Amino acid sequence: MALGEFELIYQYFSSYGAGAAVQLGVGDDCAVLSVPEGDQLVASVDTMVEGRHFTEAAFPEDVAFRSVAAAASDLAAMGARPLGMTLALTVPDADELWLHAFSEGVGRAVTAFDLPLVGGDTTRGALTISVQVFGAVPAGQALLRSGAGPGDRLCVSGFLGDAAAGLALEQGTSTFELSDIEYLSQRFYRPTPRLTLGQSLLGTATACIDISDGLLADVVHLAQASGVAVSIESSRVPLSPALRRLQNSEQALRWALTGGDDYELCFTLPSAAALPPHCTVIGKIEAGEGVDCDLALGAPPGFDHFA
Amino acid sequence: MALGEFELIYQYFSSYGAGAAVQLGVGDDCAVLSVPEGDQLVASVDTMVEGRHFTEAAFPEDVAFRSVAAAASDLAAMGARPLGMTLALTVPDADELWLHAFSEGVGRAVTAFDLPLVGGDTTRGALTISVQVFGAVPAGQALLRSGAGPGDRLCVSGFLGDAAAGLALEQGTSTFELSDIEYLSQRFYRPTPRLTLGQSLLGTATACIDISDGLLADVVHLAQASGVAVSIESSRVPLSPALRRLQNSEQALRWALTGGDDYELCFTLPSAAALPPHCTVIGKIEAGEGVDCDLALGAPPGFDHFA
Repeated sequence: MALGEFELIYQYFSSYGAGAAVQLGVGDDCAVLSVPEGDQLVASVDTMVEGRHFTEAAFPEDVAFRSVAAAASDLAAMGARPLGMTLALTVPDADELWLHAFSEGVGRAVTAFDLPLVGGDTTRGALTISVQVFGAVPAGQALLRSGAGPGDRLCVSGFLGDAAAGLALEQGTSTFELSDIEYLSQRFYRPTPRLTLGQSLLGTATACIDISDGLLADVVHLAQASGVAVSIESSRVPLSPALRRLQNSEQALRWALTGGDDYELCFTLPSAAALPPHCTVIGKIEAGEGVDCDLALGAPPGFDHFA
Repeated sequence: MALGEFELIYQYFSSYGAGAAVQLGVGDDCAVLSVPEGDQLVASVDTMVEGRHFTEAAFPEDVAFRSVAAAASDLAAMGARPLGMTLALTVPDADELWLHAFSEGVGRAVTAFDLPLVGGDTTRGALTISVQVFGAVPAGQALLRSGAGPGDRLCVSGFLGDAAAGLALEQGTSTFELSDIEYLSQRFYRPTPRLTLGQSLLGTATACIDISDGLLADVVHLAQASGVAVSIESSRVPLSPALRRLQNSEQALRWALTGGDDYELCFTLPSAAALPPHCTVIGKIEAGEGVDCDLALGAPPGFDHFA
């Protein structure tokens, strides 16, 4: 492309690279990071594509922030401390205004999550954002999906369904109280990866996953990985005041159970462990397999039971 | 997408995840890797986009292998040992034949470079392949672009220009001896990241970069990072027998100097250090700035000197 990848990266992102673990950031063939002694490296990658994960109408700041938040949420789900990230950015053209706004969103996420940008690659093509995150966790202590056992409680952080409501708002398919619009839009575009909560669960939670595909789908992943059955009481699933104000309470619950993109944590706790603040017990783990949910609404096919 | 990302990843890539450093591979929110004590983590990301880095006619196996090789070459340039990689794959549809062939190429690269696939993300969109590589290097010893000093020799590995010739062959813009076609095509599609050479240069080379943008462009990066001047003797630039057989020797030299994608290493050695096998001294480092090349051909504008 006319504007070389190096110039692009340096120009817009070079100020986001400082961090305790960063020995060498953007500008060489690789970044160099220190993983603290006794820690293991955890790593993940998350991609967002225009037209699938966001629309052309989305603000570049929001697209950037949400892309980084979604990737950082995978660190939270492992109980990891952020070390740094790289960004593979494919853009249709070197639009300076867009890149400036996008880099503002990256910068806000870098600061909010203490996740320095240590490298990247810029190519021309359909708008695609891939964020690779690195974190550290004490050796052998990472929170996995596979440790849940019978008798554990199933818990979630925060409120569920807000992001799906925010998306419906964005798409104009639902209407909301004027006073809730800003909140729901932010919950979709500016999710909060639960990094502090994840780290606090180390040594306590038996399993953990972040809610990106939707509560039921992600609980299926957890149940399969752990080889257990999970039952969810839908009436205990935490809804925000904004969703509780909705006339269509069935829709609100459906968003909470099946809408994705909340980036809250879903984890299992042994019966003796204290529930962290802002978390809710929504079900229990039993011997067996499958996920059962007593939907108090006309269940759409496929949503009431996952084998 | 109809075929979920998890199924896609498991189905095609799940057998490529074993490695000495891999504590947990594909299938959880993050991979978990052990970075050996006393080592630092090096990390990089490299993206290839259909229509820019390869054509629709390219074999999926080749696209996959080349994407991984290009990313692994960044590890080689740092002198790092491979630990693992993640793959962010955006595909227009879940074409099983394509995915099978693509995964074959990934598998060959995993084996060839000892670079296990530990995680990934699959999304739907224009074909885009982002490979994130992780490696380890003894703390403080990574080969940087910035260490070259006056008196050092400028060296390269292998032969240069073959990949550009292979691309011209692919595009039908040049003709070659029948016996050279397979070699040049392989040099473009199946490049060899110089991982062993890179590691052998630790403690010896003063600076290193891989040749991905083209020799002159990459030497400019090295010269700028080191704050030195570089002069290149074009007659010393190593050409393969295939390129030496070309009638148009000016074209061959142009490919060697400005064609990208060779993924050879370009490094600087102090005068006392022994030259490794299959490497060539092509120039020298001096005080000052800029890259000078005595092109023995009609120099195209902008290629004879970089400020």
